[in-house]
Amino acid sequence: MFTIDHLGIAVKSLTSAKGIYEKLGLSVSPEEVVEGERVKVVMIPVGESRLELLEPTTEDSTVAKFLAKRGEGLHHVSLRVPDLTAVVTKLKQDGVRLVSDEIKIGAGGHRYVFVHPSSAGGVLLELVEGH
Amino acid sequence: MFTIDHLGIAVKSLTSAKGIYEKLGLSVSPEEVVEGERVKVVMIPVGESRLELLEPTTEDSTVAKFLAKRGEGLHHVSLRVPDLTAVVTKLKQDGVRLVSDEIKIGAGGHRYVFVHPSSAGGVLLELVEGH
Repeated sequence: MFTIDHLGIAVKSLTSAKGIYEKLGLSVSPEEVVEGERVKVVMIPVGESRLELLEPTTEDSTVAKFLAKRGEGLHHVSLRVPDLTAVVTKLKQDGVRLVSDEIKIGAGGHRYVFVHPSSAGGVLLELVEGH
Repeated sequence: MFTIDHLGIAVKSLTSAKGIYEKLGLSVSPEEVVEGERVKVVMIPVGESRLELLEPTTEDSTVAKFLAKRGEGLHHVSLRVPDLTAVVTKLKQDGVRLVSDEIKIGAGGHRYVFVHPSSAGGVLLELVEGH
């Protein structure tokens, strides 16, 4: 079954942005640095999904460039799909534009691709394999 | 328990934007016009949540203005909360900025408020009552 794995939200300050979720009584994880993406993040579980707040650690990171161009807000939507290879094969046959044609391996060993926003109503759509 | 009720995504064309979700094998509802908001929408169930694609039906609607200013992309994130009155009381005490101070009643009788993006990391955050 497909689920929303997480929403990635680009923010200038984790300390400031996480406040609303703490006030709602949600559980906010400790801050963690993701060196490869040059961001620090907190995760906020919401039902079967998570909100992921992303603050850049360098000015040349992808998220820093996003903030400079668009300001704070949603950066990507991540859907969990059971069989990523089958999905990617089908999308390529259907002419859907992917950010990269190859399935990548992320932190924790999960497999993922990004669908280009031009093929997804302006949303950077991540597909991550999982159950 | 809190869950993600839906993500509202502003698009220029439902016909074009829903394609990626149909190609993923997800079920896309028939188009429905919401007169009060001057949009037409399709709903795409994903696990316990839904994606809501919003296309404006007039040029002066809120979503049309959003598209003109920001382009296609995520318009709002809607969280389902069990007791909205209690949550709103707490947020006001905590100084959180709401778009409107009063709880509103939407289509289907559901109760909702919007937290202003300035209090939620640039995200227009809807809180809707439900279980």
